[in-house]
Amino acid sequence: MSEKDVSSLKVNQDRLIGDIHHTCQWGTGERWGTASTETGMSRLSLSDADKEARDWFVATTKDLGCKTTVDAMGNIFAVRPGLNNNVPPTFAGSHLDTQPTGGRYDGILGVTAAVEMLKVLNENWVETEYPVGVVNWTNEEGARFPISMVSSGVWAGAIAQDHAHNLVEVGGGTATMKSELERIAYLGSVPASHASTPMAAHFELHIEQGPILEAENRKIGIVKGVQAYRWFTITVRGGDCHTGTTDFKNRADALLAASKMILQSHRAATKAKALASTGILTLRPGSTNTVPGTVRFSLDIRAAKDETVEALEEQLKRDFAAIAAGEDVGNLNEGGTPGKRCEVEWRTDSVSEAINFHEDCISCVTESARGIFGDRAEDLTKSMISGAGHDSVYTSKRVPTSMIFVPSKDGVSHNPVEYTSPEDCALGAQVLLGAVLRYDRMRAAR
Amino acid sequence: MSEKDVSSLKVNQDRLIGDIHHTCQWGTGERWGTASTETGMSRLSLSDADKEARDWFVATTKDLGCKTTVDAMGNIFAVRPGLNNNVPPTFAGSHLDTQPTGGRYDGILGVTAAVEMLKVLNENWVETEYPVGVVNWTNEEGARFPISMVSSGVWAGAIAQDHAHNLVEVGGGTATMKSELERIAYLGSVPASHASTPMAAHFELHIEQGPILEAENRKIGIVKGVQAYRWFTITVRGGDCHTGTTDFKNRADALLAASKMILQSHRAATKAKALASTGILTLRPGSTNTVPGTVRFSLDIRAAKDETVEALEEQLKRDFAAIAAGEDVGNLNEGGTPGKRCEVEWRTDSVSEAINFHEDCISCVTESARGIFGDRAEDLTKSMISGAGHDSVYTSKRVPTSMIFVPSKDGVSHNPVEYTSPEDCALGAQVLLGAVLRYDRMRAAR
Repeated sequence: MSEKDVSSLKVNQDRLIGDIHHTCQWGTGERWGTASTETGMSRLSLSDADKEARDWFVATTKDLGCKTTVDAMGNIFAVRPGLNNNVPPTFAGSHLDTQPTGGRYDGILGVTAAVEMLKVLNENWVETEYPVGVVNWTNEEGARFPISMVSSGVWAGAIAQDHAHNLVEVGGGTATMKSELERIAYLGSVPASHASTPMAAHFELHIEQGPILEAENRKIGIVKGVQAYRWFTITVRGGDCHTGTTDFKNRADALLAASKMILQSHRAATKAKALASTGILTLRPGSTNTVPGTVRFSLDIRAAKDETVEALEEQLKRDFAAIAAGEDVGNLNEGGTPGKRCEVEWRTDSVSEAINFHEDCISCVTESARGIFGDRAEDLTKSMISGAGHDSVYTSKRVPTSMIFVPSKDGVSHNPVEYTSPEDCALGAQVLLGAVLRYDRMRAAR
Repeated sequence: MSEKDVSSLKVNQDRLIGDIHHTCQWGTGERWGTASTETGMSRLSLSDADKEARDWFVATTKDLGCKTTVDAMGNIFAVRPGLNNNVPPTFAGSHLDTQPTGGRYDGILGVTAAVEMLKVLNENWVETEYPVGVVNWTNEEGARFPISMVSSGVWAGAIAQDHAHNLVEVGGGTATMKSELERIAYLGSVPASHASTPMAAHFELHIEQGPILEAENRKIGIVKGVQAYRWFTITVRGGDCHTGTTDFKNRADALLAASKMILQSHRAATKAKALASTGILTLRPGSTNTVPGTVRFSLDIRAAKDETVEALEEQLKRDFAAIAAGEDVGNLNEGGTPGKRCEVEWRTDSVSEAINFHEDCISCVTESARGIFGDRAEDLTKSMISGAGHDSVYTSKRVPTSMIFVPSKDGVSHNPVEYTSPEDCALGAQVLLGAVLRYDRMRAAR
């Protein structure tokens, strides 16, 4: 196919949006508006609703002439043959499971856009050089079985299949991944492994789940990687005391110290071009007239590079220790009363390394966007890194991978009101189609 | 009585400590050490344990020759006659009820020290000019029936007796103050009122419940009043967002804003020579990777003067609004990233005005301490204001009143480990005895 041929292929926006909402009949969630599509989704992995969405996926891709394979984690691979079928397919895909109070786009857009790609190829009688596949990964959300991206993790060899099979559903039930895979008849006989089901590459279209594209009036995020992050629980111990009878200099106020630490984490992250966030804070004993003796808070630090996260962690360990000891950090003590020292303790809860996507894939996405936007590509696209995890994190460990983002209204995700306009969904699908076809050409040219 | 006669009277430390621990057999609480007295107290007002302590109080004061009166709030007044009994007695007293996880000194010391005063007067055949009384106030803690100092409040005419009678116990029970007063046979026929049971003055010995005397190596606090305080609930509203996908400038981080507010309240209170404290903080939604959209926190501001509290409230209202709007206050924004604005809302929960105790009573306490400490009085006493509320707040609205503080180990109170040494308890009782006798002489001299 020439560049001109590739550019002439157009996704059908109405058909794509129709497919998104058609699949949302299974696991419809909370209503937030009056229109028929104005509801969220609640389609936990391997539930009856998920089985119905899977059945649709298998039936639809089979109708489109694909050969489908289900592996031992319930990952479904649908492959459309190319001219040469002795090599692995170029894949596009994402996941059909959702959060319990999720929306209609997270994961679903990536799968339905990949199916739309197959439809465009079929209706235009396109013959690719190599096979092209669509994949639906199991339990990406980690909402039912408590490891996110678990099945792409097993495929990549990063998580043991037995361990994943034995994961018990959250919420007090007794079902395991394996028992639910059996129950809904999606326990495939093929081992979940890159060795058994190889890929040439993996492209994933996804909603941004953040506000940046919308805020900057851009249409497409060219995702170059996934940021590194570390999660910590910080405990600050001072002493409880009566707010009325204890002057400032006799207090070891754990909340005042924690407030300084939270502010300092924001300043240090700003300086490091990183992110630092506290989403949980609890304290004891919790009474209006008692100064808190113990405060515990979460700290989530993220950056594009592992070194940045490591350096920020080291700096904040020094800064928090100094703040607890009553030393001045960044003039935070200015105008206050020196009190008694607190103790601070760090616990590391999670470490996730930075992911760099493959240059070949990134360049196919960039070219595809340029093919659509022409001279406006620079204004309408943004080179970015993903703040959240995706199945592409694991595929990138085995095969060339990259992602495409489209705008999320108000940056909202994991919420029933999650929304991406039909135009933006279609633009994302168009970029995905162009990227996969360009990758196919690139393979052939080598 | 001459000054010399007054100074020659000595409280009996062992007898006083014996009485404290004897009364702690009723309502013994959590054990914290191995010695027999190393437990806390759990003697909720009008419980069976409280009835036993009351029965001891009535029997003991009757044995000492007192006439006892119980009013309609269960306040017990025991009066030892003087030479002239046509005028109201000079009272000393406090309360025998405790917090559910309280200690052995809060309230109990003030009552048992006043009983010790009666014992010293009797064994020395002292005849005071006017009658001297000891009072046990009902439900000072507000721990069982949810208004603190409610019965001295009724006596002072600040709280309606019917309203107090209808207070229902906390914790889901159905008992009211009145039903419990009837049940334990302490519903007196005399109305609870300063008109029915008049006092000439009210002295109260109490543990400091703060760390200041201990920290400064002083023995006696000469309490000149009770500080003003106001309690608020502050709500900061920003927007929830994903910690990984939302850059700083697109966040309305309610916890970052609240952290700045807490730090600023500390700075502004330092400048105003006031106190500001946050004891409760809750946030939503509460997930490591979600920036909190809503934070709610308590703010307790206190100062010796009402004007100081008012001015601090006004300043913090301006400062918090500026912080929420993203404006810089005190360089708190320095080195950070400007984000989106939050909203801030104040709710006033409680307003308590400053109390100034009576000069006559304060001077009797001062003279009494000087009589004991001599030249060392300046080093060993401290003129202070009370940070917490006491029954003396209400008596001061009707009659000359003041208080005496003794050191609290580590400033701890409302806790089983609350502790004041036998020597310090006896010193406080000695100052109380001297103050009451000096007040009696002052009345006679006028």
